Amino acid sequence: MPKTDHFYPVILAGGRGTRFWPLSRKRRAKQLLALDGKKTMIQQTVSRLLPLAPAKRFWVITNQDLHREVTAQLPGLEKNQIIAEPVGRNTAPAIGLAAFILQRIDSEAVIGLFPSDHVIGDERHFRETLLRGIELAAAGGNIVVLGIRPTRPETGYGYIEAGIKDERGALRVRRFTEKPDAERAAGFLAAENYFWNSGMFLWRAGTLVNALREHLGKTAAVLEKIAESFGTRSFSGTFRRLYPKCENISVDYAVLEPRSAKGETQSNIYCIPADFGWNDLGSWTALHEHHVARRNPENGNLISGKGIFTLNAEGNYIYAPGKFVAAVGVNNIVVVETDDALLITTREQAQDVAKVVKYLDDKKLRRLV
Amino acid sequence: MPKTDHFYPVILAGGRGTRFWPLSRKRRAKQLLALDGKKTMIQQTVSRLLPLAPAKRFWVITNQDLHREVTAQLPGLEKNQIIAEPVGRNTAPAIGLAAFILQRIDSEAVIGLFPSDHVIGDERHFRETLLRGIELAAAGGNIVVLGIRPTRPETGYGYIEAGIKDERGALRVRRFTEKPDAERAAGFLAAENYFWNSGMFLWRAGTLVNALREHLGKTAAVLEKIAESFGTRSFSGTFRRLYPKCENISVDYAVLEPRSAKGETQSNIYCIPADFGWNDLGSWTALHEHHVARRNPENGNLISGKGIFTLNAEGNYIYAPGKFVAAVGVNNIVVVETDDALLITTREQAQDVAKVVKYLDDKKLRRLV
Repeated sequence: MPKTDHFYPVILAGGRGTRFWPLSRKRRAKQLLALDGKKTMIQQTVSRLLPLAPAKRFWVITNQDLHREVTAQLPGLEKNQIIAEPVGRNTAPAIGLAAFILQRIDSEAVIGLFPSDHVIGDERHFRETLLRGIELAAAGGNIVVLGIRPTRPETGYGYIEAGIKDERGALRVRRFTEKPDAERAAGFLAAENYFWNSGMFLWRAGTLVNALREHLGKTAAVLEKIAESFGTRSFSGTFRRLYPKCENISVDYAVLEPRSAKGETQSNIYCIPADFGWNDLGSWTALHEHHVARRNPENGNLISGKGIFTLNAEGNYIYAPGKFVAAVGVNNIVVVETDDALLITTREQAQDVAKVVKYLDDKKLRRLV
Repeated sequence: MPKTDHFYPVILAGGRGTRFWPLSRKRRAKQLLALDGKKTMIQQTVSRLLPLAPAKRFWVITNQDLHREVTAQLPGLEKNQIIAEPVGRNTAPAIGLAAFILQRIDSEAVIGLFPSDHVIGDERHFRETLLRGIELAAAGGNIVVLGIRPTRPETGYGYIEAGIKDERGALRVRRFTEKPDAERAAGFLAAENYFWNSGMFLWRAGTLVNALREHLGKTAAVLEKIAESFGTRSFSGTFRRLYPKCENISVDYAVLEPRSAKGETQSNIYCIPADFGWNDLGSWTALHEHHVARRNPENGNLISGKGIFTLNAEGNYIYAPGKFVAAVGVNNIVVVETDDALLITTREQAQDVAKVVKYLDDKKLRRLV
């Protein structure tokens, strides 16, 4: 596949995934958990992209807390392919640094930005979609975002409003929309030209570098300095010293929204509708639904235990792999047990699990977060 | 208190308490758990009776599985005061054996029969009530049962229908009633002359011996033979050999019901209404209610954990003393965690926990029961 000769997957692995507490922890974030099969989420992210690019072209950006475990989980990557930010600065500086470095290595580099903790149901279709996107991004100056066709009026995601189809049949992006309220989300679902922002982007390194220089000048200058030291002995020190000076901002907010404000024909942002069984597994509830859809278990119960007994129990997610689990008369409950913690919640309220982590952070109960 | 000079407490400690699984096990039944304070239920049973009788006059009847732990928990009793049945034969043979033995030791012995796993709120009042009962039982030929004033239309207990007040102001028992359906239970509650059968009885050893000879002749003969060997080296062998020949029957069914059929004035069975905060802690739900009534915790949550976080959580009972417990958006849930098991149920369905134990028994999962 010659069109992927310059394709560089950049995987963002700095998230914390607090909604998977108590399984996810500061040093064992969601992307490092095997929530869907034997491989961890980040291992799956890498392996589904390997048919499109050799291992040496991958980049992973993570943080100090996760660096060791990310490195351990990806033995096929070299040490210098895994970059640990000295401080978190959101996605714009992270992907920007990769762009400045890659532009120096390969002037035709096309960067694909990928979250490390999503599920893709149909990997073949995923790669076919990417190939279209890579082609579109390689054709100078275009920014490509994969948009997921909404299946429900979700209020937890950002949306992409697509506009006219251009001469190549690609959808131009009209605007990016922040998380909507329920009424607007219902409207988006009905309108059919709105897509969920998947967080997966494609662009040439040079396109991104130029966009950052235009929209985020100071940060771009900092990143350029760091990139200049890449491959030298001073890199690590320079990175640690300068990176904190970058603005803390997402690439959506820093680049895509101002760019899209130029109007859909001027901004050169394209949306490729993606239909490959995407799921961001945003909570225990989403994980439960994902597995129920795939495995259709009896009474909708997903229970990991060393022996199981259920009676009048439906739609529960219970994770206690070392224990005999008995569920009697409970419905739509989520229970997750680890060596040091026990979470009891409902499918409806599972997203509030992040508040447990906030509490533990506030109380400085460090061994639990 | 001279009238207790011949008072012998006999404590029945052979029950299994399966509804407290996974905390209760075959070798660590409910009466051996500290469900209400620091002492175990059987230790509390003994200590609340000690003001009425010296330790040497206590008898405990248990089974082979529990013998070792009962002995360990009651260091104040001599070995031969704790009798382990070779096989379970329900309450009639158990209390009957105590009666045949005690009659030989003290012809004026008054036996008090006590379950080992109930809670008594007001111990002073409990002892005052017992003193009245002991007096009534000592006055030859009377059988005294402590009746609990119903506070709800409970369908899980047997009831006592009280009749006329006799010349001493004691209530005569008209009949014993099996567990009623909901409609009858509501009627009993309204009628005000119905009491819950507490399982606590008082009678002279000779009264019981005579009653057994009359109503359960063969078993009485067997028990008499075993009693004759008590204190000799052959006791243990005789007990093991003969006890299985006893009928498997409760004292209520074997003696009290046929006796009461003679008519309330002839049967000499009396009910002393008891009002000392009795609770049989029949399930996790009952335990939860008991503690909520005593301690009035915030939002009705009773949570044992190494750290606790709750959010929109009410009326839950959670036991996981070694873990940080987070309860988010759950109400009226019961969760109990041990080293090898995790129970998740509701306050409404907690009595079905016995079915988990039945399942484990059937599957011969012995280490879990």
